Amino acid sequence: MIITLKKQAPPEEVERVISGIEKKGLSVTVIEGANYNVFGVVGDTTILDEKLIAANPYVDNVQRIAAPYKKANRLFHPADSVIHVAGVPVGGQEDLVVIGGPCSVESKEGLFTIAKAVKEAGADMLRGGAYKPRTSPYAFQGQGTAGLQWMAEAREQLGLPIVSEMMSIDKLEEFNEYVDLIQVGARNMQNFDLLKALGTIRKPVLLKRGLANTIEEWIMAAEYIMAGGNDQVILCERGIRTFEKYTRNTLDLSVIPIIKQKTHLPIIIDPSHATGDWRLVESMSLAAIAAGADGLILEVHDCPECAWSDGAQSLKPERFQEVIEKGRAIAKVVGRGM
Amino acid sequence: MIITLKKQAPPEEVERVISGIEKKGLSVTVIEGANYNVFGVVGDTTILDEKLIAANPYVDNVQRIAAPYKKANRLFHPADSVIHVAGVPVGGQEDLVVIGGPCSVESKEGLFTIAKAVKEAGADMLRGGAYKPRTSPYAFQGQGTAGLQWMAEAREQLGLPIVSEMMSIDKLEEFNEYVDLIQVGARNMQNFDLLKALGTIRKPVLLKRGLANTIEEWIMAAEYIMAGGNDQVILCERGIRTFEKYTRNTLDLSVIPIIKQKTHLPIIIDPSHATGDWRLVESMSLAAIAAGADGLILEVHDCPECAWSDGAQSLKPERFQEVIEKGRAIAKVVGRGM
Amino acid sequence: MIITLKKQAPPEEVERVISGIEKKGLSVTVIEGANYNVFGVVGDTTILDEKLIAANPYVDNVQRIAAPYKKANRLFHPADSVIHVAGVPVGGQEDLVVIGGPCSVESKEGLFTIAKAVKEAGADMLRGGAYKPRTSPYAFQGQGTAGLQWMAEAREQLGLPIVSEMMSIDKLEEFNEYVDLIQVGARNMQNFDLLKALGTIRKPVLLKRGLANTIEEWIMAAEYIMAGGNDQVILCERGIRTFEKYTRNTLDLSVIPIIKQKTHLPIIIDPSHATGDWRLVESMSLAAIAAGADGLILEVHDCPECAWSDGAQSLKPERFQEVIEKGRAIAKVVGRGM
Amino acid sequence: MIITLKKQAPPEEVERVISGIEKKGLSVTVIEGANYNVFGVVGDTTILDEKLIAANPYVDNVQRIAAPYKKANRLFHPADSVIHVAGVPVGGQEDLVVIGGPCSVESKEGLFTIAKAVKEAGADMLRGGAYKPRTSPYAFQGQGTAGLQWMAEAREQLGLPIVSEMMSIDKLEEFNEYVDLIQVGARNMQNFDLLKALGTIRKPVLLKRGLANTIEEWIMAAEYIMAGGNDQVILCERGIRTFEKYTRNTLDLSVIPIIKQKTHLPIIIDPSHATGDWRLVESMSLAAIAAGADGLILEVHDCPECAWSDGAQSLKPERFQEVIEKGRAIAKVVGRGM
Repeated sequence: MIITLKKQAPPEEVERVISGIEKKGLSVTVIEGANYNVFGVVGDTTILDEKLIAANPYVDNVQRIAAPYKKANRLFHPADSVIHVAGVPVGGQEDLVVIGGPCSVESKEGLFTIAKAVKEAGADMLRGGAYKPRTSPYAFQGQGTAGLQWMAEAREQLGLPIVSEMMSIDKLEEFNEYVDLIQVGARNMQNFDLLKALGTIRKPVLLKRGLANTIEEWIMAAEYIMAGGNDQVILCERGIRTFEKYTRNTLDLSVIPIIKQKTHLPIIIDPSHATGDWRLVESMSLAAIAAGADGLILEVHDCPECAWSDGAQSLKPERFQEVIEKGRAIAKVVGRGM
Repeated sequence: MIITLKKQAPPEEVERVISGIEKKGLSVTVIEGANYNVFGVVGDTTILDEKLIAANPYVDNVQRIAAPYKKANRLFHPADSVIHVAGVPVGGQEDLVVIGGPCSVESKEGLFTIAKAVKEAGADMLRGGAYKPRTSPYAFQGQGTAGLQWMAEAREQLGLPIVSEMMSIDKLEEFNEYVDLIQVGARNMQNFDLLKALGTIRKPVLLKRGLANTIEEWIMAAEYIMAGGNDQVILCERGIRTFEKYTRNTLDLSVIPIIKQKTHLPIIIDPSHATGDWRLVESMSLAAIAAGADGLILEVHDCPECAWSDGAQSLKPERFQEVIEKGRAIAKVVGRGM
Repeated sequence: MIITLKKQAPPEEVERVISGIEKKGLSVTVIEGANYNVFGVVGDTTILDEKLIAANPYVDNVQRIAAPYKKANRLFHPADSVIHVAGVPVGGQEDLVVIGGPCSVESKEGLFTIAKAVKEAGADMLRGGAYKPRTSPYAFQGQGTAGLQWMAEAREQLGLPIVSEMMSIDKLEEFNEYVDLIQVGARNMQNFDLLKALGTIRKPVLLKRGLANTIEEWIMAAEYIMAGGNDQVILCERGIRTFEKYTRNTLDLSVIPIIKQKTHLPIIIDPSHATGDWRLVESMSLAAIAAGADGLILEVHDCPECAWSDGAQSLKPERFQEVIEKGRAIAKVVGRGM
Repeated sequence: MIITLKKQAPPEEVERVISGIEKKGLSVTVIEGANYNVFGVVGDTTILDEKLIAANPYVDNVQRIAAPYKKANRLFHPADSVIHVAGVPVGGQEDLVVIGGPCSVESKEGLFTIAKAVKEAGADMLRGGAYKPRTSPYAFQGQGTAGLQWMAEAREQLGLPIVSEMMSIDKLEEFNEYVDLIQVGARNMQNFDLLKALGTIRKPVLLKRGLANTIEEWIMAAEYIMAGGNDQVILCERGIRTFEKYTRNTLDLSVIPIIKQKTHLPIIIDPSHATGDWRLVESMSLAAIAAGADGLILEVHDCPECAWSDGAQSLKPERFQEVIEKGRAIAKVVGRGM
């Protein structure tokens, strides 16, 4: 950590800052510049709060050198982590996973129709929302527990692990019972109580990036879950909010090499939510695979225009299958199966 | 609502879209253009889901004319709402309110010292975080229930209503018991289960704008609480995330006239979190008052550099008092007391 | 175009708006809603200025249905445009083009060393900046005319068409003489005098997307050049400005399918400037190809750490060659040569 | 400047980086951490290019401590600069200036009508665009030279200094002859050739912040003009591009105290372009004054709905006068005349 003090800082203030840091077991080196004095802090700086140091009116600037995360940090865990979701491995050099299914579970029959179609098309897991985060209180809010139970029945019948979004800590037990991969949605990426609760269980978590969260905040959200003792985190990019209006969000594929460089966790991509438009899903899926993603999560519906939510971004099963087939050929070029 | 269909849409598809809308009791008018056919939908369009209509491959575009919110909409409630927080009125032509206090409640003694100082400086309410949303799992997470109890004791002793952030629905009862104005933080603005829970009680809610949420999404979050039956919502702008690096967030003061135009709810401003820098708080506070805000929420700490969180943005009590004094003079010019 | 008027608009105001539009030869249809009156305007709405109509205090909202561009619009030019750069075709079903070279031309010898290396590695064109847009007035500003002449000599010797950025209209003649593909940089995307000047010549133009420009504004910038009579425009995405700090810009690959849907122009990708980090260039290059790009423009330097500008994002020639080889395999999967 | 090297950097690489810097006359101090080695560079670091240092594959990170600007830097020029525009002082403790007039000069008669009205309302200068940067090539592009001449005639008759936007260096002589304060528009803030040209003359320049430019880039643009020898730069905030859709841009008023802290230059605010909506102009004008701005630039038109550009954001003269009157009262509170 680098702390910059104004040149006019009184010696006793400087002393106070230094001794405060040294008391915590870190060491401090001073570099005198023409207009500033700079202090280099060496040791475990994750225990320091830069905002507090910056509160000193003589401090001009505080900057971290080392990343603020430990458990997710590749520096301390050089090998790729492979997360097993009900037997399906995700990450490392394993085959890419494809997760398909409806945005929201509407009815048991509807779910089974889509589930069979995604299985036939080659999906590795089934997705489906039972609790839905909707911008409007007047929109369909999900089928709740019944939706999860139908998902579980589909798993029994088809052998596909299931993925669903948990929005609230009072549903932890229910999700721990029914779901194989618990999704934290973009809007809850910094719902810290939810992250802590997921740290207490031993189920894999699919952690979506928040709409306006930096990669560092995203890794810190993973760190929350991991700090609780649950190491099974899969990251999922789903687009960030920008000024652009032709797409719902801007899909940031550069996170793929960055996440692999900074962390040891698997990363998958959600082009359906990122773009909000099924016509863009195939090209963004192929791009994600070429960039080194560990998998895809795609919305599939047999009748997108009859869907109860997000129909505009859902693929029909036949197009979903096309994406998988083309994706397989791309995966082969970058040395992966799918 | 305006629906644009491609010219090559087959008549039976067009018919299907129209009859689907008419079945819901709305009426449809067609305008034939050279390259598109445009349909104008008249009636209560809040019951339509534009994403579903957009799922039809022949639909080029769907745009709302009427706002998607009702209860918060000034169109249907022309008079300003005044929200009473334990007797202190907020909004309309009432005096501006000033809420001051520490970012987080650290100890009972510390809290009381600051609370007395903010009261003497002229604050109308006391703020203090007992549960803290922290980016790092290794940072101080708040004093929890004890913190809320100390806040309640400060209220008894000093007569200031208290404001604190609730992060999780399992604390609803506790907050309903102790707190006068329950804050929803920026990171939870779209935690829909939390919003629904707050709709079931009859306490005022301070709803902060999310870091990357549009004004419309923010009003929709208020609508969630109001749709549940709790009309007592105060909005709070605290800066949005942009590319700028010299400030923590970009304070968007244009929301003040916009919120007053679109809704009937009070709006207050939080320059401390918006800027992240106490040196910018005074000028942004005065600007907010000049722009027509109904109040301010400011972080105050007797020793910012000893604070356990967000010291860099906390004012010392003497500077807090200065802001109030200058603010009063500005308020007078725009016809308000403070 | 859809114009929404407030219900309380006096009939004479409504009449004035309608007759003003009809006088321009367009026709107007009225849809009466409960709270608004909506007017649908049919005809060539590119001649209407929505901001002027919105200036009427009774107008609530104005929205375009048809795109504001004509010459770039695929609706009116269904076939892909193929642009020929000194004999090298770009776009359509032609082979993907790879443009490589240094950020800035430093010396004749240095340029020739890199130029030979990119040619050997398989590049189709040579890039090199002679005039450099630098954030600081104290940074190297480019070799100017000499730089362009060295580029032209490299073309003679190696047979590679050359690409260079023009920053100012007083250099039009020079660029028209020496350069095969004239680049408009991101910072000049809305330098309208520059665009108009480029509309008067008959050389291909490489139009980079501005850091904070929407896709629509970008197409409108192409329209400026095309409206002047120069149809030879190649679009180039180079990242947009967002809140993310780990990359210099956020590469928006979803523009590839969108540009192909909305326009008939070729689009190439610049992962070097987008990411600002050579370690991210390979994966973003492969992703761009998988998404359907018509080519890549990459920075190459034989000694990135000795470069005079942007070394951090430059590939060494051997890595550049690797990108081309892997890229070729991806291109084959999506049905293209390279 | 702080340079972070990976621990595994070979000693000869470390040596190379250090000696490269020392050769330029700067000195280097090493701080050895557990996972990184950190180098503090002391001296005039404006001559170093951080991107080049970052190009070294062993360099993890490069951060500046000192600001990259000198002439605009308050550290080296503690006193406020006051810029005189044809006798009207701007900045320091001088009275606030109000600049009013039409977005674009449409006709001589129209201009004179508005000019008289803004003078009567109390404006200090007249604004009017003769060359207009328009997103569409099919929109009105300005009256050109004739427009500037009418502006100059209005100055003769009314005694108001005139402000107009220059878009291209080939018009430098014309602007130097006719205009008192030459405006650089947001889209040209990083048109470096334009900035350099303006550095060669001795006329005041009004430098608008780019839509997506950081405060640091904006100050560096001022530095370009000042580095050429023209110290007369007035900065103007006019809103930045964000995800919000209810306003055209997001007005960032926190720049006012920041610009005053980092530089010695005057700063004025343009609420008309920032918001794009005349209904928001008054409150944002008052907020700007309360925050400490040195002036306002406002669009005024006697018939906004007949304007040839940007009518939606223009005030009628009577409302412009109201803004000035209320503004004066706010200015008094913050200790300024107007």
